[in-house]
Order: sequence, then structure tokens, then C-alpha cells
Amino acid sequence: MSEATSRIFTVGEHASVSKTITEADVVLFAGVTGDFNPVHLDAEFAKGTRFGARIAHGMLSAGLISAVLGMKLPGPGAIYLGQEIKFLKPVFIGDTITAQVEVLEFDAEKRRLTAKTECRNQRNEVVLTGTAKLLV
Amino acid sequence: MSEATSRIFTVGEHASVSKTITEADVVLFAGVTGDFNPVHLDAEFAKGTRFGARIAHGMLSAGLISAVLGMKLPGPGAIYLGQEIKFLKPVFIGDTITAQVEVLEFDAEKRRLTAKTECRNQRNEVVLTGTAKLLV
Amino acid sequence: MSEATSRIFTVGEHASVSKTITEADVVLFAGVTGDFNPVHLDAEFAKGTRFGARIAHGMLSAGLISAVLGMKLPGPGAIYLGQEIKFLKPVFIGDTITAQVEVLEFDAEKRRLTAKTECRNQRNEVVLTGTAKLLV
Amino acid sequence: MSEATSRIFTVGEHASVSKTITEADVVLFAGVTGDFNPVHLDAEFAKGTRFGARIAHGMLSAGLISAVLGMKLPGPGAIYLGQEIKFLKPVFIGDTITAQVEVLEFDAEKRRLTAKTECRNQRNEVVLTGTAKLLV
Repeated sequence: MSEATSRIFTVGEHASVSKTITEADVVLFAGVTGDFNPVHLDAEFAKGTRFGARIAHGMLSAGLISAVLGMKLPGPGAIYLGQEIKFLKPVFIGDTITAQVEVLEFDAEKRRLTAKTECRNQRNEVVLTGTAKLLV
Repeated sequence: MSEATSRIFTVGEHASVSKTITEADVVLFAGVTGDFNPVHLDAEFAKGTRFGARIAHGMLSAGLISAVLGMKLPGPGAIYLGQEIKFLKPVFIGDTITAQVEVLEFDAEKRRLTAKTECRNQRNEVVLTGTAKLLV
Repeated sequence: MSEATSRIFTVGEHASVSKTITEADVVLFAGVTGDFNPVHLDAEFAKGTRFGARIAHGMLSAGLISAVLGMKLPGPGAIYLGQEIKFLKPVFIGDTITAQVEVLEFDAEKRRLTAKTECRNQRNEVVLTGTAKLLV
Repeated sequence: MSEATSRIFTVGEHASVSKTITEADVVLFAGVTGDFNPVHLDAEFAKGTRFGARIAHGMLSAGLISAVLGMKLPGPGAIYLGQEIKFLKPVFIGDTITAQVEVLEFDAEKRRLTAKTECRNQRNEVVLTGTAKLLV
């Protein structure tokens, strides 16, 4: 991990992480957050929804964004100021999600960075999009 | 849990959940998201930051918001369209966080709900604020 | 569990444990160690490797060896001095691994024990082999 | 993460990861491996040992080595052939461990890499040392 606090960021610079979302991830995320919405944990309930099967928590995918921000771009030392998220498509158990962060703006004086944040599944469909703001 | 899909929501209506954020929560959240930013997991590194100690992942608190939305208000059956988050203060291991959701707008025809979302710690300080949009 | 500290060990004496390696085990092992190597956690990446699918962390199988050593042979009270490991075959999610420990040498005066350590899968293929040294 | 399969490695090149070993890590490691040795999980038993308190599983620290190997040096795509480990000092709950990998030898033709592997605690004491062999 490289320190975020002393470097310059270039518009268009990007980084990503990928991960298969497993049933265990969904169970553990529910356990940590208390989000026991049956659409995530009750296979019988989920069958009757528009999704037809259990889906992962949206904030789990958002957590992958946070992993890129905190570990790669801008990396350790940055302060997460805010995040805007649009949930576009469901993430199912077994989907492989790639979270990507791309620098949109960097104010070197105020050390403010704005990044486009996006999650795609293994079919390259955007499942989550948004913008992050950080102090680096 | 009550179904979100057939009821009316009133502006000002609110619901909340509370939870102490433990070291185990932070460890598991890191494990699920891959977010091993040392500010969350490395006590020695964290000592040297402005926070002085390990802090919880911001998205973990956001997950508590999602728990209220998915289980209480509007509750199961709602579709999470988007979330805007501002991270205002750090959450430390051992803090007890109350996530609150309050209806700001409800369009009964389009079934669109906008809610104010907020997390407070045990000293009643707002640590996270924002807005959620759902289809109910 | 029997105490390791006051008994005699015989060359050839052996003990084992068996366990199915689940996706949850791999997720949790990654979470504890921070080892998010995509060959363990990214099904799409793993398809393109020589293994063709996600494999378990080698050290997870090594942990089963440590379970036999610490709980059965020599058992609680022993001090783990060292371990030599050769990884021979991949362990896939769903494989059932038997870790076996067999006494190779025991110096009753210095209380030093050397053991052959081996993990086999459900097809009786050796996936991991090596030698452990303990003070008992 | 950079692919290990097409680059050159230089003797002396090194990389590391750091992590505080929490009680949750020890609990989860025990749950995954089945290593319920009371020196790790039974505080009353541990009081009566030479360590005086519960210690982390040695293979948990070894897992941090594997995290550096699999994610940083040599990184994804490498095949872990073997590991030699000496456990030198106990790791207690709350210790912050830095796992470091340093290239000792690299045979570019056979794509074989040998690395020195070491874990140190927050007092810079070496708790684990050894050698790793990989195919890159």
C-alpha cells in the first residue's frame, strides 16, 4: 500500500478490485450490519420477488468500492468524505464483481479528490455507479 | 417484518436500529469486502493517524442504514435505488451506533420514497448523514 | 484433550482430523489473513488459471495439521517449533481434507518430537506433505 | 495486483503487510481449521502455560506471509510450492504483526523464486522466520 497523503493524482487514473460474492459473504455482511432483509437471506421469500433469488446487499458492493479507495486509489491515509451511489442491477450470489475507481478531479492545494466509482458484474453490466469524495 | 409494497408512508415517519460496533465486526467487514485499509486493521498504523486509533469502515455504518431500510422503513420488498452519504465523524471500535431513517417524501403513485438517513454515536454526535431513494 | 507434557510418544503413532473445505472457510481465511489472492476469491480469474477454479489457501490445509498437533498428537501443552511444508496439489472448495500426523522421532530427554505431516483429499491424493517439530 | 507470471524479480526486492491480530481473528481461524487447542481459546488454561495468556495460532501468522506472496511479491498467478517455518516467539491477541517477504533467489528460466519470509511484532521482534519457494 502506498501512502495517499503526499502524491499527485491524475484525472483518468484508475484502480480496481474483483471478488466473487459468495453466500458466506452475504451471511457475514448480514451478521455484521444486522440487515436481515429476507431478500438477502430467505431463499423462499426471494423466489417471490422480482429478482427470483436472493441478492447481495447493495452496501456489500459499495464496500468493494471502499476497498479500492482505501487500499489502492487514493490508498491508505485518505479520509473518506462522502459517497453517492445508484444501485442499477441486483448482484446475485456467485456473481463476480469488479469495483473500479477513476479520478475525476484532484485539487492538489486543498488535497480534495473526486472519483467516479462503479461496480460491474462478470457480464460487464454496471450494477452500481456513483461518485466518491476524499481528502488525501 | 411488514411488507413495504402496499402501504402508505407519511413524511416524518421514522425508524431506527442500534448496535455496538465491535472489533469482530470490523474484522468480518474487512473479510467480506477485502477492505484491509490499515486505518481499520492495524493498531500501530492507526495510532499515527489523525484518529489515533483504529476506526470502523464507513460503509459498515452505511450498512446499518440499509438494515433499517430493508427491515423496518420502508421494509422488505422495497427496492434500494440510491444512497447519498456524508461521513462526518469517525466510528471507533466500541462505539454504539444508532441508524435512523426518516421519510422526507413519498410519491404514492410512483411508489417512490425519499428518506433522510443518519447515524449517531452514543454521545448523540452525527457520524454519517445522507439521503436514500427507494421504490416501494 | 490429553496433556502432551508428561507422556511418552512412540515412532509410528499417528492421529488425524478430517474436514470439508467450504467456500465459507475460504472467505473467512481470507478475512483473517488478508490473503485476497484472486485464485482463492475470484471465480472468473480462477477459470483462467491452470487450476480452472478457485482453490483454498495452502495455509488453510496447514492449519488442519496444526489442529491435529495441538489437539491430538502431541496435544495441548506442546510448543510448535517449526514446520516444513510442500504443497503438492490444489485443494478445491468442496474437497474433504484429512490431515495426518505421525511420530518420526521422539527424544524423551529433550522432550523433542518430530512428526511427518500430510494432508490427503477424498481421493486419497496427498495435497500437502511435510515435517513438524515440537517441544512437548 | 500485478501478475507474477511475466516479470523479473531482483534479489533483495521486498514487500510486506501489517495487521493487528484480534480475538476475532483467533476465533475465526479456530473455526475454519478446527484447531481448538486451549492455548488459543481457553483463557483459563492459557494462564497456566509458559505464555501466561492465549496466543494466536502460528499458522495465522504464516497466513500473513501467504498474503504477501499471493498479493504483492511475487503476486497473483504464482504457484506456492513450499514453505519452511520456524516459530520463534508467541503472538498475543492485540499484537500487530508485519509479514515481510524478500527475494533470495530467482531463476528466470525455470521461473523459480525463493524468498526469505519473516513476521515481526510491534516491538520489532521476529516471531516467525522461514523460506518460501514459488513457481512464478
